[in-house]
Amino acid sequence: MVMADKPQYRVIGTRPLRPDAIDKVTGRAQYGADTRQSGMLRGYVLRSPHAHANIRSIDTSKALAYPGVKAVITAADFCLPGQTVADLPDLTTNILAGSKVYYHGQAVAAVAAISDEVAREAARLIDVDYEVLQPVLDVREAMLPGAPVLHEAMRTRTPEGPGAEPSNIVAHAVVVFGDPEAALADCDVVVEGDFSTRMVHQGYIEPQAATAMWNPDGQVTIWTAHQGSFPARQATATILNHPSSKIKVVLTEIGGGFGGKIAVYLEPVAAMLSKKTGHPVKLQMDRVDVFEGTGPTPGTSIRAKLGATKDGNFKVYMADMAYENGAYAGTAANYATMVATACYDIEHVRLDGYDVVVNKPRTQDYRAPSSPAAAFAMEQLVDQMAEKLNMDPEKLRLQNSSREGTRGSMGMPFARIGHEEIVQAALDSDHYNSPLEGPNRGRGTASGYWFNVGLRSSVNVTVQPDGTVALSVGSTDLSGTRTSLAMQLAETIGVDFEDVKAAVVDTDSVGYNDVTAGSRVTFGTGMATYEAGKNLIAAMKERLATTWNVPADDIQFEAGKFSSPDGSKSGTFKEIAQLVVGRGPGLTVSGSVNAGFLQGGGFAHHIVDVEVDPDTGKVQILRYTAIQDVGTAIHPAYVEGQLQGGAVQGIGWALNEEYFYDDNGRMLNSSFLDYRMPTTLDVPMIDTILVEVPNPLHPYGVRGVGEPPIVPPLAAIANAVAHATGVRQYQLPMSPRRILQTTGKIEE
Amino acid sequence: MVMADKPQYRVIGTRPLRPDAIDKVTGRAQYGADTRQSGMLRGYVLRSPHAHANIRSIDTSKALAYPGVKAVITAADFCLPGQTVADLPDLTTNILAGSKVYYHGQAVAAVAAISDEVAREAARLIDVDYEVLQPVLDVREAMLPGAPVLHEAMRTRTPEGPGAEPSNIVAHAVVVFGDPEAALADCDVVVEGDFSTRMVHQGYIEPQAATAMWNPDGQVTIWTAHQGSFPARQATATILNHPSSKIKVVLTEIGGGFGGKIAVYLEPVAAMLSKKTGHPVKLQMDRVDVFEGTGPTPGTSIRAKLGATKDGNFKVYMADMAYENGAYAGTAANYATMVATACYDIEHVRLDGYDVVVNKPRTQDYRAPSSPAAAFAMEQLVDQMAEKLNMDPEKLRLQNSSREGTRGSMGMPFARIGHEEIVQAALDSDHYNSPLEGPNRGRGTASGYWFNVGLRSSVNVTVQPDGTVALSVGSTDLSGTRTSLAMQLAETIGVDFEDVKAAVVDTDSVGYNDVTAGSRVTFGTGMATYEAGKNLIAAMKERLATTWNVPADDIQFEAGKFSSPDGSKSGTFKEIAQLVVGRGPGLTVSGSVNAGFLQGGGFAHHIVDVEVDPDTGKVQILRYTAIQDVGTAIHPAYVEGQLQGGAVQGIGWALNEEYFYDDNGRMLNSSFLDYRMPTTLDVPMIDTILVEVPNPLHPYGVRGVGEPPIVPPLAAIANAVAHATGVRQYQLPMSPRRILQTTGKIEE
Repeated sequence: MVMADKPQYRVIGTRPLRPDAIDKVTGRAQYGADTRQSGMLRGYVLRSPHAHANIRSIDTSKALAYPGVKAVITAADFCLPGQTVADLPDLTTNILAGSKVYYHGQAVAAVAAISDEVAREAARLIDVDYEVLQPVLDVREAMLPGAPVLHEAMRTRTPEGPGAEPSNIVAHAVVVFGDPEAALADCDVVVEGDFSTRMVHQGYIEPQAATAMWNPDGQVTIWTAHQGSFPARQATATILNHPSSKIKVVLTEIGGGFGGKIAVYLEPVAAMLSKKTGHPVKLQMDRVDVFEGTGPTPGTSIRAKLGATKDGNFKVYMADMAYENGAYAGTAANYATMVATACYDIEHVRLDGYDVVVNKPRTQDYRAPSSPAAAFAMEQLVDQMAEKLNMDPEKLRLQNSSREGTRGSMGMPFARIGHEEIVQAALDSDHYNSPLEGPNRGRGTASGYWFNVGLRSSVNVTVQPDGTVALSVGSTDLSGTRTSLAMQLAETIGVDFEDVKAAVVDTDSVGYNDVTAGSRVTFGTGMATYEAGKNLIAAMKERLATTWNVPADDIQFEAGKFSSPDGSKSGTFKEIAQLVVGRGPGLTVSGSVNAGFLQGGGFAHHIVDVEVDPDTGKVQILRYTAIQDVGTAIHPAYVEGQLQGGAVQGIGWALNEEYFYDDNGRMLNSSFLDYRMPTTLDVPMIDTILVEVPNPLHPYGVRGVGEPPIVPPLAAIANAVAHATGVRQYQLPMSPRRILQTTGKIEE
Repeated sequence: MVMADKPQYRVIGTRPLRPDAIDKVTGRAQYGADTRQSGMLRGYVLRSPHAHANIRSIDTSKALAYPGVKAVITAADFCLPGQTVADLPDLTTNILAGSKVYYHGQAVAAVAAISDEVAREAARLIDVDYEVLQPVLDVREAMLPGAPVLHEAMRTRTPEGPGAEPSNIVAHAVVVFGDPEAALADCDVVVEGDFSTRMVHQGYIEPQAATAMWNPDGQVTIWTAHQGSFPARQATATILNHPSSKIKVVLTEIGGGFGGKIAVYLEPVAAMLSKKTGHPVKLQMDRVDVFEGTGPTPGTSIRAKLGATKDGNFKVYMADMAYENGAYAGTAANYATMVATACYDIEHVRLDGYDVVVNKPRTQDYRAPSSPAAAFAMEQLVDQMAEKLNMDPEKLRLQNSSREGTRGSMGMPFARIGHEEIVQAALDSDHYNSPLEGPNRGRGTASGYWFNVGLRSSVNVTVQPDGTVALSVGSTDLSGTRTSLAMQLAETIGVDFEDVKAAVVDTDSVGYNDVTAGSRVTFGTGMATYEAGKNLIAAMKERLATTWNVPADDIQFEAGKFSSPDGSKSGTFKEIAQLVVGRGPGLTVSGSVNAGFLQGGGFAHHIVDVEVDPDTGKVQILRYTAIQDVGTAIHPAYVEGQLQGGAVQGIGWALNEEYFYDDNGRMLNSSFLDYRMPTTLDVPMIDTILVEVPNPLHPYGVRGVGEPPIVPPLAAIANAVAHATGVRQYQLPMSPRRILQTTGKIEE
């Protein structure tokens, strides 16, 4: 669906071939683990077998004596003079444990050796003296008085100030609008539920890998597949106590991230091993390391109530939301308060967010972090409300939908957004209008929101002598952003897509770029690219002014053509570039923006049909439609891919994925065999409907599109399962076992 | 020696450690042959065993069938539809021969295979049907009517238009000032000589190597150790008939060039082999390939006369200068006419330059190309004149020296130059004032000139969040220019040298840069760097204006410090950068210049003491002093290194080096064992005297310094040998054999 007032674009909205595709499909693309440097050593990271333990001592002497070993390091190597490992910040101890380990798989020591095999073998000889402690694994248990405490120094941050006692509750955030308690009493209908989701992993294809070379003069080069070269550099610099400008981060291609590659894990370790050995050192994780040692998304416990008038006007929403942050303090629940009620115009709201530490990996972002679990609660309550009121759930959503001017979850009115339009698109869709027949089948729908961010971006554009341009980007390309940025530049300067060649360059070659996350690159780096395009046209007018002998300000640039004031002289961008750059000095311009924190929200709405096997409990997805307000689809095929990918990841989260622990906090399913992600055989074709409500905050109306599509699936599938089975699902994953338990076929 | 009016600099003139030195001394620097790409094939180039032959046919079938061979190419692969190899331009046939081979070692075909060994073995199976022709090897013989003609289509270009008959004389250039014939008759003293020099090689350490990857979408990447990434890209694009913007040239470190790495040899061949195979292909030369297949500097024959009044005023100089261009048309003799008389103010001049083709490799530039041989003639005549007039040769030079306003060789008056100053420095030097005693010893002196060029350069400067800056350079760093450019930037923006990090980047990441040659990088790219620094200060003032709320134009920047108009706010560059960039959007600026063709001449003057062994003919260098007007020495240690290196290369040229051919035109000494370059054991410490006469054409007074020091040694040593032996040396090299011949110890 396209808004009637959408501007006519020449390049935007087309579907050119992706320039990086050839390297990727031919296997030639170089990922993190493909880095090779001469004289390179291999490193191996020893990880904790315990979920919670004090480290009394580490004896590396045997490992260091092992033939072929060049260095062994522990957290002590990161201490400044006078510091002990107990003084090291969380940032450091999460990459090499200090005086404690907080989760099974936490990195404890690292070896550099002449081969991977030697490094692994030597790592076994590292003698770590652990004092094993009781772990706490459940978010609600961790909140109880008397639970094992992870961090003795942690005091809960609350609106009234810090707590008095050690606690696993990092913070208690409270968001109140109106008078929710009083409003609840006035409601005609109230629905409520106690929802929980499990820790799941982003499941990116490429395990983390990093190679570092610490030159004797202090210049460090790091090759890594990371979501942000500049933030990775800064974090590494902080951990290493080394000036960030002496570290150059070179991004390799990246095999997925989804938020999971925002933290550094191996980069500082490789750098320190390189410093100690004088050689480049490569570290790479295997899948076990990835599951156990990197940051998945939190498990949650959400107790929520939705109250409405009998004619279906939402009056109040209250939720107590506890989010696991894993081993260290985080802000997952705080994020949840920023998104929980965004889809609806609800006057009275109370959200209590609890960020809680447990003996699991330090969590990281995963596509619209915190929002899917929040929507799992809200959108099931909306579905229950529709049932109680005997209303079409889509019409109920439409009736209560947020729109331009509605107070968003953060208390600020929304700019132009498209939630109404996508729910209407669902109502109008073939899917929604096709009856679903047959036993054990059900249809579910749900909405979802992600706020999207802007932040800082910078690009360079260099004009080639033949009039084409090269675009140097500092943002990791997770999803085809080299293409979406090149398309915006081509639109801005009036050339063909093929005349723009985009590449991701290192941290010394372009201005600062924040992390590729928050769906911000096509938006924020797109704004920087637009600005660079405008700067380029201005610079070419300056040169043309000399050549044409007319004032630069009087030169017109329209529809890709420069012309003199009297129209006697003109030329396309390419012709003029050949004239003023091809025969003159080179020309590079840059564009830099701080696109702020918020960039205009993104809303998704999904429809799913399921069939639940009553004997096995297996949930089969029969049909799936993902609808989204995508602002302006720069490259519709990639946007569709984002919607499809997000939906499939949500399906996995809903049905199968979970971190499965034994009582001692050891993860039992750290492989893709036991941690079951959906494959193409498990899902039907995901249909997409792109709704384009241009974002007024971006020159081409772009909205971030990557994150909203993972928000609705959990609730949409739960609603569908509820309709298929008659049993409401409060807990994820809705695995066959859980379906059989909840439908009374087997015992809990 | 420093001029009294030299400005005070903070960074310029210091001697910081060279940032690329660590990689180089630890062996970690990646040179051309160090490129490795996954799936990379190795290539091998088959070369002609004949110096002159028609190619009747090439049968590659047996080679192609050899196990492990992936492709075999010939010049036919570079033909456009409808073209035959006879139609291909010289640029192409010099990298793979067309219908003829013109020199022993010319590339004829190339193989790509799974290993170097397989490629070499398969190349033997290529069946080339040659019709062998008579070669012509001597420049004067090649000019004679009836000599074997290399190019049937070649007609001599003369001031009167093209010649009528096929000829090996490419062009006859005539430069006349005044009335030389008449003036000669008026001279009191005339000296003359018939001088000749032999073809010599630059002798760079690193043989040529190039790796290319031709992606199926037409994007080509080339890794190469080349003197100019942009010109290499353009030449390769032309040969491949492929858009230059689809070729990205990535420079590796380079192990010397001296002009010999301006031409492309392997780059287009590797690219074509990659296109054919779908794999990256690496080609690298061995030393035999380098000698036989790349471009050395011309052999010459110069017949010259110098006339003067009896009180030592030079009145007339006449020279007939024939330069070998090797197999293809070139401009070596034309260059000679531009430099031959530059050191002296001579009213009447006639120069006849003959560019001649012979059956030897196509010549290339070698440090001040064409000037050393021209000085070999001129400076020996000056020495002879001093003898005849019984004058001190230095005083004679000083009396006749060029200075600001003197008409240079090209007919334009010189700007401020320093030839008088360096001759005076010689007269004042310890070396010149130390008597040389003992038998068989002699002292010689000579001057030399190179015009130096400016051309086009472009750099980018990116501010890092911590207030340091990264400098992206597009000019090959042959001699430490990353450092000399970083120093100029540090001077311009008022930071420490350590706060500027310079790197050479690829052709997609920076504006156009001409070749690193003509001593132009520290000068021309230095001007671009200066401009970038000025642009950076202006951009920071713009940002600061917002922060300080004052007009940008009113902000002062002096001595590395920004300050508000009333002085109430101020900060160093680093402090302000942290403020306006570290906390804001990134900042990259560029600087681009067209520094024109001429950049202000460079003059050198050398003093050498030799001892000639009367029994063996060996010439021993006892003491050597190189004096030069270096404008402003940005990094004096590197400037001294340039003077020393140029002097040593000149010593090799003077005493030992030559291309030695058999009668069939086969080079007999294509190894460093038989082609004798001087080692540290052969030369004393080369003393240097830097004279700084700032170049008014550069903001910091820089002059190109790399080329002048190779100009004087040939003549200076010849003068010294003449004084030691009493026998004038007209022919190079002055090898033991030649010394014994000319002193009558053995027969010619």
